[in-house]
Amino acid sequence: MVKVTSENNQVKDLLLNRRTIRAFKNRALSQEQLDLLMESARQTATSSFLQQSSVIHVTDFDKRKTIRKICQQDYVGANGDLFIFIVDLYRNQQIRKQSGNDDGRLHNTDVFFQAYDDTVLAIQNVANMAESLGLGTVFLGSIVNDSAKMVKILNLPVLTFPVLGLQVGIPDQQPQLKPRLPLDFRTFENEYNYDHTLSDLADYDKNVQTYYDLRNSNQRIDSFTAQINSAKLNHKKTKRDEILNTLHRQELCLH
Amino acid sequence: MVKVTSENNQVKDLLLNRRTIRAFKNRALSQEQLDLLMESARQTATSSFLQQSSVIHVTDFDKRKTIRKICQQDYVGANGDLFIFIVDLYRNQQIRKQSGNDDGRLHNTDVFFQAYDDTVLAIQNVANMAESLGLGTVFLGSIVNDSAKMVKILNLPVLTFPVLGLQVGIPDQQPQLKPRLPLDFRTFENEYNYDHTLSDLADYDKNVQTYYDLRNSNQRIDSFTAQINSAKLNHKKTKRDEILNTLHRQELCLH
Repeated sequence: MVKVTSENNQVKDLLLNRRTIRAFKNRALSQEQLDLLMESARQTATSSFLQQSSVIHVTDFDKRKTIRKICQQDYVGANGDLFIFIVDLYRNQQIRKQSGNDDGRLHNTDVFFQAYDDTVLAIQNVANMAESLGLGTVFLGSIVNDSAKMVKILNLPVLTFPVLGLQVGIPDQQPQLKPRLPLDFRTFENEYNYDHTLSDLADYDKNVQTYYDLRNSNQRIDSFTAQINSAKLNHKKTKRDEILNTLHRQELCLH
Repeated sequence: MVKVTSENNQVKDLLLNRRTIRAFKNRALSQEQLDLLMESARQTATSSFLQQSSVIHVTDFDKRKTIRKICQQDYVGANGDLFIFIVDLYRNQQIRKQSGNDDGRLHNTDVFFQAYDDTVLAIQNVANMAESLGLGTVFLGSIVNDSAKMVKILNLPVLTFPVLGLQVGIPDQQPQLKPRLPLDFRTFENEYNYDHTLSDLADYDKNVQTYYDLRNSNQRIDSFTAQINSAKLNHKKTKRDEILNTLHRQELCLH
């Protein structure tokens, strides 16, 4: 092992230069790459050692196509490999059941959040592992555009829930680093800082407008505050509002 | 930059050998270390570019002591540095308000989960950055042992919620790698695999019992299935059941 110094810290290089990749070459991952991705999920920290997350590798052509339709993003389930990360309390329910115990706290919101934390920590580590291997990644929050349908496609039992997808592949684009909010808007000391006002964001807004979004080639994007005031957060009727219903149908967050 | 190969991949080494550290030397982080941790939170992927998470660095002695009491873990807020990661929809509410817009979908469960994802992805990256600098970390799910009190201590506005804490410092212990469930229990292809039975876990149970937990010096731990059948998941009355109430009081997940 090479000693890590401030000059050769690969973790730092990776974390500070991370770009979302949405265009991949038409090649699937190798078995060695797949193994490393799954192993990094497995070794991720887990709340109270309960190990309440699982990963589904979606290789079936029809399932990938259906998930692409749910996500409404043409790169989902296309080139590269598709993984769905799920909260998984079913496994522990079965262990308790086969040992003669009831479900205990498995239907409580508290335990659901423990599992949700496990799941999201794991997906970030899988993405980091992938990127360290020269692969690109895009997180897919869009899998809950129709959470009930995702449950059906993956044949998910009660006490499980699809949290995030991850599309992984060989990058076929080189996006710019997307400008983030200045740190003093996102980090505070000892308590929440209520002081920021809209006018403080003027410079950042200009900065965001210099970014070219590869999704719409050569078209600059709206300022940050314009995006916050846009359809992204405006009232609208969407199937994403069925998340709570799906959770309850999955017997999660009942208390 | 040194070229990353399969022989010198530091990200891989870090992710596959990750241990929780709960004993730290009595030294605070340097400004350079703090800056790198916060920068890695800032550069983490964010759902729909909404940037809906924030970090609070808790340096105040009394606040650290109170949080330690909530967490009931003597290392919390003791040696090293303490960070609380929060869902933060308040910032975007203020942007919309000051622009003359209503809160739109900010009170919906859907948007809360987007922000929750942002928050947990960020904490994993901060932990990875810390570990790449030779520091140790422990994730603190215990901050929601009393979520209402955490909201008060950090003076959190509506539309924010404390998700996870992270204690970071110079390691003062060398724990073993904790054995995880075999991969075929946690990774599936195309759909959920219902096949596993308790007896399949016998070997893993034995494996777990060979692990010495540094929290109780020289005492072996219970098998995995014994832990799943234990107090960790048994019915009990706890303040952690107030999470849903706190969320609603914070005007989150209302729909």
